[in-house]
Amino acid sequence: MEELHGSLSEPVLDTMNFLNEITHRYPDAISFAPGRPYDGFFDSEQVFACIRRYLDHLAEQGASAQDVRTALYQYGPTAGLIRGVIADSLRADEDTDVPAESIVVTVGAQEAMFLVLRALFAGPDDVLLVSSPCYVGITGAARLLDIAVRPVEEREDGFDPSDLESAVLAELAQGRRPRAFYVVPDHSNPSGTTMGPEAREKLLELAERYDFLVLEDSPYRQVSPGTPLPTLKSRDRSRRVVHLGSYSKTVFPGARVGFVVADQRVRDPAGGEHLLADELAKIKSMVTVNTSSLSQAAVAGALLGAQGRLSQLNAEAAAHYGEAMREMLRQLDARLPAERREALGVSWNEPTGGFFLTMRVPFRVDDARLITSAKDFGVLWTPLTHFHPGAGGHHGIRLSTSYLTRAEIEEGAARLARFVEAQCEAL
Amino acid sequence: MEELHGSLSEPVLDTMNFLNEITHRYPDAISFAPGRPYDGFFDSEQVFACIRRYLDHLAEQGASAQDVRTALYQYGPTAGLIRGVIADSLRADEDTDVPAESIVVTVGAQEAMFLVLRALFAGPDDVLLVSSPCYVGITGAARLLDIAVRPVEEREDGFDPSDLESAVLAELAQGRRPRAFYVVPDHSNPSGTTMGPEAREKLLELAERYDFLVLEDSPYRQVSPGTPLPTLKSRDRSRRVVHLGSYSKTVFPGARVGFVVADQRVRDPAGGEHLLADELAKIKSMVTVNTSSLSQAAVAGALLGAQGRLSQLNAEAAAHYGEAMREMLRQLDARLPAERREALGVSWNEPTGGFFLTMRVPFRVDDARLITSAKDFGVLWTPLTHFHPGAGGHHGIRLSTSYLTRAEIEEGAARLARFVEAQCEAL
Repeated sequence: MEELHGSLSEPVLDTMNFLNEITHRYPDAISFAPGRPYDGFFDSEQVFACIRRYLDHLAEQGASAQDVRTALYQYGPTAGLIRGVIADSLRADEDTDVPAESIVVTVGAQEAMFLVLRALFAGPDDVLLVSSPCYVGITGAARLLDIAVRPVEEREDGFDPSDLESAVLAELAQGRRPRAFYVVPDHSNPSGTTMGPEAREKLLELAERYDFLVLEDSPYRQVSPGTPLPTLKSRDRSRRVVHLGSYSKTVFPGARVGFVVADQRVRDPAGGEHLLADELAKIKSMVTVNTSSLSQAAVAGALLGAQGRLSQLNAEAAAHYGEAMREMLRQLDARLPAERREALGVSWNEPTGGFFLTMRVPFRVDDARLITSAKDFGVLWTPLTHFHPGAGGHHGIRLSTSYLTRAEIEEGAARLARFVEAQCEAL
Repeated sequence: MEELHGSLSEPVLDTMNFLNEITHRYPDAISFAPGRPYDGFFDSEQVFACIRRYLDHLAEQGASAQDVRTALYQYGPTAGLIRGVIADSLRADEDTDVPAESIVVTVGAQEAMFLVLRALFAGPDDVLLVSSPCYVGITGAARLLDIAVRPVEEREDGFDPSDLESAVLAELAQGRRPRAFYVVPDHSNPSGTTMGPEAREKLLELAERYDFLVLEDSPYRQVSPGTPLPTLKSRDRSRRVVHLGSYSKTVFPGARVGFVVADQRVRDPAGGEHLLADELAKIKSMVTVNTSSLSQAAVAGALLGAQGRLSQLNAEAAAHYGEAMREMLRQLDARLPAERREALGVSWNEPTGGFFLTMRVPFRVDDARLITSAKDFGVLWTPLTHFHPGAGGHHGIRLSTSYLTRAEIEEGAARLARFVEAQCEAL
């Protein structure tokens, strides 16, 4: 029997397995748990068309048949084949003008997180600050690398820069170095909150003043209705923002293509100066070598088909997700009207986009209660505590609306209301 | 300016960048450097056919159109979609009968190495032994995880188990724990040596006796002529072997699909028992989430098209590589016949397959000499010292024959012989 590394059985790594197991055990439950994109707009044939469009694009750019074959077949450049296509898309959609060289194509945003943490965190005194509750991917990557994480708790309406400043000062006072702050500024996973324009400016000022980087992860902004706020990266005047990109919601998750914009100048221990992107590529060569050229071709083909505009590519999807969110809010309001929920001590936020909202309840939310909800009420969701790197979240529920039909939302909200009523009654 | 993590600028990570740069600077040089597969048997259309074959296979297995769409589109199972196809292939081709559950599909064998090291190595006293000279992927992954590496030097004819035993004893004597031994038993990269049947049995005995695992990496065996020796995994009676699989040479590198067979029972710190494969999947969820479903579909389609037999799929390729290797040996022998090379103090091994052979020379081989070779003689190769985790390899040259035409091999060997003659003369 082999003994394993000590830190693998942490709860944060077990969240998804636990949820999968519950989902499997109660197949008839309506599930507000998975943050999966809706696949109703997708047809398998699209993938073939996208790959072909990219190969045709290479030929139009002057590639010979042999060059095209090599691009698809061989080991590719570690930093990616489609950096130029991505840079064009960021210019078209995100008011972000960065050279292709500052981009590394990754196996989803997850690999980008891993690479950035591995590159930036040097010693035990370096601390990663995270807006909390927090996407488990970043805390998982930090754990794999034994990086210390300090949560900065969101308020009910979201991130507050003064809380970040207090956390930075507390870390500095203890002799540690806040190296980076991770945040999902738009329609956050899990809370559904969006950072306002002032908080964005203030965050960039803090990063400058206290010399840390901002890791901006924003997978939901282009699949949400309306015009999104400017990204942190587009407002970044002093290269303080490392932008993590995902195509899992905007193109398709199965491709496993993401990217990172890392246009920071860095100095290695030998005194050499490079782009952070070059250092990330070096690390990537020892993790995955390069990103699947097939997948890169499919994503580039999708981008090229929409002149780089993810917003255009996702207009229908964004309207769909927006409507699902509004329907959920309508249904919750119908089942637990203002007066009733106030009496119970129940509330929820009202995101204008994204996949998630959070409900606050007066009873303690844990895995046992989730099982009760699945078994006796036929409805699944995620305890918010799974997303808290520290303690906390014991009265929060994450609800995802991305994957459900209107009928499922209606029935699911009714079941959820019954569950909540019953738990409150038993208090 | 950001300061970076200390261990990124290590020579082992810079090898490929250096070689790429030299190759770029001397485009007319004939290069024995890159270990790339030959792509002459590949047509871009094959990829589409392979993906379709896999999707058809899913439908034949009873998947609905929606199931097929979900398989291609959505986040997939972390451990992989195509584990069953891989397990069938291992039974058909490698006399290895393992349950699909013991397999994790990875982003190339590189990710498999990373996951295995992260799972198995718990503390600073755990040591990774590697057969040296050694593939840079494993030492790179070890470096990313700050894992101590001890090289076990190959002899001129390859790995000798008694050298491994001495290394194990030396580590134990110093209070360290040899946790695993990494080796490429067939047509090794970089040396080209193959481990004989007796050494294989002896290695398995040592693993049992001294309680370490064997990390078996064998990407070249199915693209080499003749019947390969049994894998270590197929002779593994006590689950001592973790088998790392790559489809980069047998299907195509751009897919970035590999796998690991990890059928060991492991105990986590909380006392729970699992398959090592399950633990690897957990770690994978925090590195890449899952492997591209498109790429998995392409690889599975290729396997299904050959009834799982990589040997059959690669019959033409294996003959091609075998002929390239024999041609190289013929040309070297013609340019530097036995008597002449003996007089110079030059020798090389004679692999029966794989992509690489090594030449030993009386002069010191370093990057400066490589530049001379490229600039003045128009021929490129890789200094063996790049593959030595410790000191060593200063008189060795790795020559790759996988990617060159017969005419290039003939001319390249002539140039190489002139370079070697000139260096020996100048001694």
